[in-house]
Amino acid sequence: MSIAELTPSDDDLEAVMHGLGAEARAAFRALTQATTAQKDQALRAAAAAIRANTETILAANAQDIAHGETKGLRASLIDRLMLDEDRLDGIAGGLEAIADLPDPVGMVMDSWTRPNGLEISRVRVPLGVIGIIYESRPNVTADAGGICLKSGNAAILRGGSESIHSSTAIVECMHQGLREAGLPEAAVQLVPTRDRAAVGHLLTMVETVDIIVPRGGKSLIERVQNESRIPVIAHLEGLCHVYVDAAADPDMAREITLNAKMRRTSVCGAAETLLVDRTAAERLLPPIAKALMEAGCELRGDAGSRALVGGMETAQEADWTAEYLDAILAVRLVDGVAGAIEHINTFGSSHTDSIVTSDDTTAERFLAEVDSAIVLHNASTQYADGGEFGMGAEIGISTGRLHARGPVGTEQLTSFKYVVRGTGQVRP
Amino acid sequence: MSIAELTPSDDDLEAVMHGLGAEARAAFRALTQATTAQKDQALRAAAAAIRANTETILAANAQDIAHGETKGLRASLIDRLMLDEDRLDGIAGGLEAIADLPDPVGMVMDSWTRPNGLEISRVRVPLGVIGIIYESRPNVTADAGGICLKSGNAAILRGGSESIHSSTAIVECMHQGLREAGLPEAAVQLVPTRDRAAVGHLLTMVETVDIIVPRGGKSLIERVQNESRIPVIAHLEGLCHVYVDAAADPDMAREITLNAKMRRTSVCGAAETLLVDRTAAERLLPPIAKALMEAGCELRGDAGSRALVGGMETAQEADWTAEYLDAILAVRLVDGVAGAIEHINTFGSSHTDSIVTSDDTTAERFLAEVDSAIVLHNASTQYADGGEFGMGAEIGISTGRLHARGPVGTEQLTSFKYVVRGTGQVRP
Repeated sequence: MSIAELTPSDDDLEAVMHGLGAEARAAFRALTQATTAQKDQALRAAAAAIRANTETILAANAQDIAHGETKGLRASLIDRLMLDEDRLDGIAGGLEAIADLPDPVGMVMDSWTRPNGLEISRVRVPLGVIGIIYESRPNVTADAGGICLKSGNAAILRGGSESIHSSTAIVECMHQGLREAGLPEAAVQLVPTRDRAAVGHLLTMVETVDIIVPRGGKSLIERVQNESRIPVIAHLEGLCHVYVDAAADPDMAREITLNAKMRRTSVCGAAETLLVDRTAAERLLPPIAKALMEAGCELRGDAGSRALVGGMETAQEADWTAEYLDAILAVRLVDGVAGAIEHINTFGSSHTDSIVTSDDTTAERFLAEVDSAIVLHNASTQYADGGEFGMGAEIGISTGRLHARGPVGTEQLTSFKYVVRGTGQVRP
Repeated sequence: MSIAELTPSDDDLEAVMHGLGAEARAAFRALTQATTAQKDQALRAAAAAIRANTETILAANAQDIAHGETKGLRASLIDRLMLDEDRLDGIAGGLEAIADLPDPVGMVMDSWTRPNGLEISRVRVPLGVIGIIYESRPNVTADAGGICLKSGNAAILRGGSESIHSSTAIVECMHQGLREAGLPEAAVQLVPTRDRAAVGHLLTMVETVDIIVPRGGKSLIERVQNESRIPVIAHLEGLCHVYVDAAADPDMAREITLNAKMRRTSVCGAAETLLVDRTAAERLLPPIAKALMEAGCELRGDAGSRALVGGMETAQEADWTAEYLDAILAVRLVDGVAGAIEHINTFGSSHTDSIVTSDDTTAERFLAEVDSAIVLHNASTQYADGGEFGMGAEIGISTGRLHARGPVGTEQLTSFKYVVRGTGQVRP
């Protein structure tokens, strides 16, 4: 753990970071020759190593927890950081699940033959070296490293500084897996210092890093988007809406809203604002509000909704853009589906939004005109998840429009090339 | 033409540029509701307007030519800038060809049903507002504006300052087309000033511009990549290679090399370096060199190739990275396909590279390991072109790995969204 404790001088840090970059680049070149079997073997062997080294990893985690408690870390953050045998088993199982996914690399996405006989195909290739910046969550170390490896990319992982011992121990298990499969350890590297200046270097290593994936709070994402000289796939925030249309089935509207808000309030797919069609609000809103309040949810309504439901707080303008990640829901009456679309495209974060209605024409308009990565009809926003989409593990949900949108899994971490096979064609 | 002559104060310029951005944003919103028929009508009506206004456009072009000659513009640049009836007819035909392309927007890329009954589909949507920075080529004004419109994007065009009158006249015809189709004129806007500071504003308008597409010389692309706060799809340079393997058919190797270099030397798909397998160079290189020299090509060879062919210049290290865009070719002997791959991945620009060989195993290794947007077997590098790929018009060839790689046409200027249709599903 000596490197982990290093607080290098500025020059040393720059050298350390550029060294990581150069090693990642070389590892990426080696990975482009790796077979699917080799990558899957590395993932399974890493999972086995995590199970075999449970005690070592838990001891490292205890160091992190002790350090976190000394620093006065909040209980919710300590909980995210904490490992136990069950959680470690889940982390190992996650790597095995990634091994079970199809290999995106080499997949022929499309192929066609030109009139001159040229056979053209579009074939998936890895993206390159991916820098991932995330919270103090040791499970993300394994997930992110595993997803990058499966898709043929080299990963430079920068976990939250409070998790450095746990993450180092997990990365050592991944290195064991890579060695067993005959792949370079540098395919998965962890930034070996708590020094926050390391992120600044990572974001400017244009020669060796192809893409940056930040995960975490708004301030981190904004820092990354402002400072990075490297393209960013960002998961901004999940300001998700449920719109209950006049033509909604009342029971379905209640169950979907309750689930979208309260199943888990801390996930990015949790609903933060409920929009209700003004013409039917008197009939539809009270039972929904009752169910939410009984489940312990605070409601913050506009004048129209407060006139229909007692016990609501008054919503301020800021509530329309608040990602509570808590048992709080903003409520607003709108003028039909057009009003809902207008509200969502104005205040939303282009993440995930749902309409509840029995009118298919209204639904199709919502699905077409709401400008979000995921739009749903008669289903909970909490389905915003790569696993629920059948895509396997994900490292985030992109709210940007370039390259990857929505869940970012193994396929989304690939690029492609055009392969053209001829018989001597020259261009006239 | 008064606006075109404007040299606004710094504050005015910023206001002008942000005004363009806001109008483009609003136009983009309107375009998301446009039908295919409307967009195609706008394109065809713009083509008709160009044909109907030939005299006006040629008069505007004459102003640009006169200004360019006063400035002492090189003859090759004057030629690129010059319009005549034939060229204008070609520009109009280009817009009609874009109208004939399939509409990428709304295309279902993929769809599947989950065990819980959720029906998920991935549907193409436009990218948003695209800023295009290009040379003084009036034809690009129509092409780029047309491709953006077809793919549902709003375009802010910044053509080279020497072409401003021609481009303004062409954009006026596009506005006429948009009006006839009931679409907002601001879907295609031209930066109405020669002031170079306008580009600096465009590159930082993160609130209104989604993507920047630079076309042109290396220095422009580098400036854009350094200054832009907006994601860039860049066409860097075309440092294309032909590798002639020991197992190549000699006639095919000669014809492909000759075509790859000399068909047109100024295009990005023109070969700049010829690599020849050392073990067969004595047999294969001399006839290729003879054909090239007879066609007027200067050869710059390494020691090995100069020992086999008289009349070659001596290649310097800089020749391996030179994009000549002229009748000059660097020549080097390499150790088989492995040496060729190593050379290309070290010195190339990830654009387009071709192997000539009758050995399919060798070819597949080259196709897999050369890390370029386009890799070819037994075909000329001059096929690096969206039209030749059957993709229709393109606004460049991306050498980056993110979002778009290779020819950038209408499909590459789209994003997508996930549309999920349920029957009341809530997540357990």
